[in-house]
Amino acid sequence: MIKAEAKIRVRYGETDQMGYAYYGIYAQYYEVGRVEAMRLLGFSYKEVEARGILMPVIDFSINYLKPAYYDDEITVVTYLREKPKGIRIPFHYECYNSAGELLNTGKVTLVCLDKSTSKLCQMPEWFSKAFEPFFPENG
Amino acid sequence: MIKAEAKIRVRYGETDQMGYAYYGIYAQYYEVGRVEAMRLLGFSYKEVEARGILMPVIDFSINYLKPAYYDDEITVVTYLREKPKGIRIPFHYECYNSAGELLNTGKVTLVCLDKSTSKLCQMPEWFSKAFEPFFPENG
Amino acid sequence: MIKAEAKIRVRYGETDQMGYAYYGIYAQYYEVGRVEAMRLLGFSYKEVEARGILMPVIDFSINYLKPAYYDDEITVVTYLREKPKGIRIPFHYECYNSAGELLNTGKVTLVCLDKSTSKLCQMPEWFSKAFEPFFPENG
Amino acid sequence: MIKAEAKIRVRYGETDQMGYAYYGIYAQYYEVGRVEAMRLLGFSYKEVEARGILMPVIDFSINYLKPAYYDDEITVVTYLREKPKGIRIPFHYECYNSAGELLNTGKVTLVCLDKSTSKLCQMPEWFSKAFEPFFPENG
Repeated sequence: MIKAEAKIRVRYGETDQMGYAYYGIYAQYYEVGRVEAMRLLGFSYKEVEARGILMPVIDFSINYLKPAYYDDEITVVTYLREKPKGIRIPFHYECYNSAGELLNTGKVTLVCLDKSTSKLCQMPEWFSKAFEPFFPENG
Repeated sequence: MIKAEAKIRVRYGETDQMGYAYYGIYAQYYEVGRVEAMRLLGFSYKEVEARGILMPVIDFSINYLKPAYYDDEITVVTYLREKPKGIRIPFHYECYNSAGELLNTGKVTLVCLDKSTSKLCQMPEWFSKAFEPFFPENG
Repeated sequence: MIKAEAKIRVRYGETDQMGYAYYGIYAQYYEVGRVEAMRLLGFSYKEVEARGILMPVIDFSINYLKPAYYDDEITVVTYLREKPKGIRIPFHYECYNSAGELLNTGKVTLVCLDKSTSKLCQMPEWFSKAFEPFFPENG
Repeated sequence: MIKAEAKIRVRYGETDQMGYAYYGIYAQYYEVGRVEAMRLLGFSYKEVEARGILMPVIDFSINYLKPAYYDDEITVVTYLREKPKGIRIPFHYECYNSAGELLNTGKVTLVCLDKSTSKLCQMPEWFSKAFEPFFPENG
């Protein structure tokens, strides 16, 4: 399993007039979470793009339990629970506030896209190999 | 059934370096869609808040089929398929580009919150009555 | 002179907990304004990029007189007061609410960048010619 | 003088199709900068609001020298160069990338607003006193 934690402080511009962090901002918070999860593989998402692979999102879901407020420090916990197979990479999420309360849970699935052809593609070997140390049982 | 259509043009600031409308921006597009759907009831979401009811989102899900691009004119079709019962109001969505291609489908569920107590509440009668003309069979 | 008006409705996600449209959102509103101003030239900013010219912003300033609120319909008035000379294209702005109150005034300067070299460049002739009908005295 | 530094990593959702951090995102980066500058006073902006003072922005200007890119770690340096007098609090900014290159410079002026009356007000004494240790010569 890959598990990563990212700390994010809620910006004023991310709140709405209800006084909550706007429900749509979690797409960005989750993005920050999986970028940190991927960094554990030994390269950044930026490098993945530089090597010709784009990773668009094909589905996103989120269940909100409690709101986050301005200036709260949120912990985004990102999980990759299984070694990616085929073309889909599913990330699972939990967001907590600084009191340790669970704010929301969610899931985002990425796919690999060949930048030169703009078509879906299998994960290249250099990429899939990087997952192996984290999933020894699936090796 | 309630069905509403809203036209939204993709802003430059809403694109990302992949050249797509960022996956997180649809939370705002869907918000615009349901605001227009609610206007059909005879009042605006702004008035709902003025009458003491906040409507936070408790779940949001979206499946992406095709990306939208800068300057595309998107049509957000919002459906309320059943008369709301209890405290949940589920909106269903379809987004199309100007070529009529389906870009994504999704769902957002709102709940009613009493502004004065910050607690979940039943939909007030003035609110639930406004749905009746659209759901005669459930009347 | 070129003058264009764009109508924009303030989204919930654009408000902040002060209940105002967030001060940073006007960068997007002004972007929408100048895109509409440029469309009067006979082509879209999207086409300008397709022809190999990027137009990054080199300065932006804004003075806030009154806030905009959720669901307000804002009118962004964009002016190009002089025929662009050299590499700078300065747009001037006024934002009004639906009561006709002036909300803010501002200025954004764009430059032309050659997409293939990523260097600043003179405005190509097809581009500068498009301004001529609007500035007969400078012809 | 008050000087504060904040580190911010450019999110994917903050880039645009030009591959730059969108010009409008710096309003949020500057907000993060001044929030950190204010924390040096011994309280947070969140507490200022809790004590009944809102601090809207009345002007914002920025000059862009170089773009920031996805995943860059930006340093926002925020300066309060003079002890605030009257109702205006002017913050000055410099943004640097991790190579130490100056990306942009700017200024944001805040004012104090009494939350209960929604009118401009003098800075309360508890607030203005907090600036004194940083500006001994103006004491």
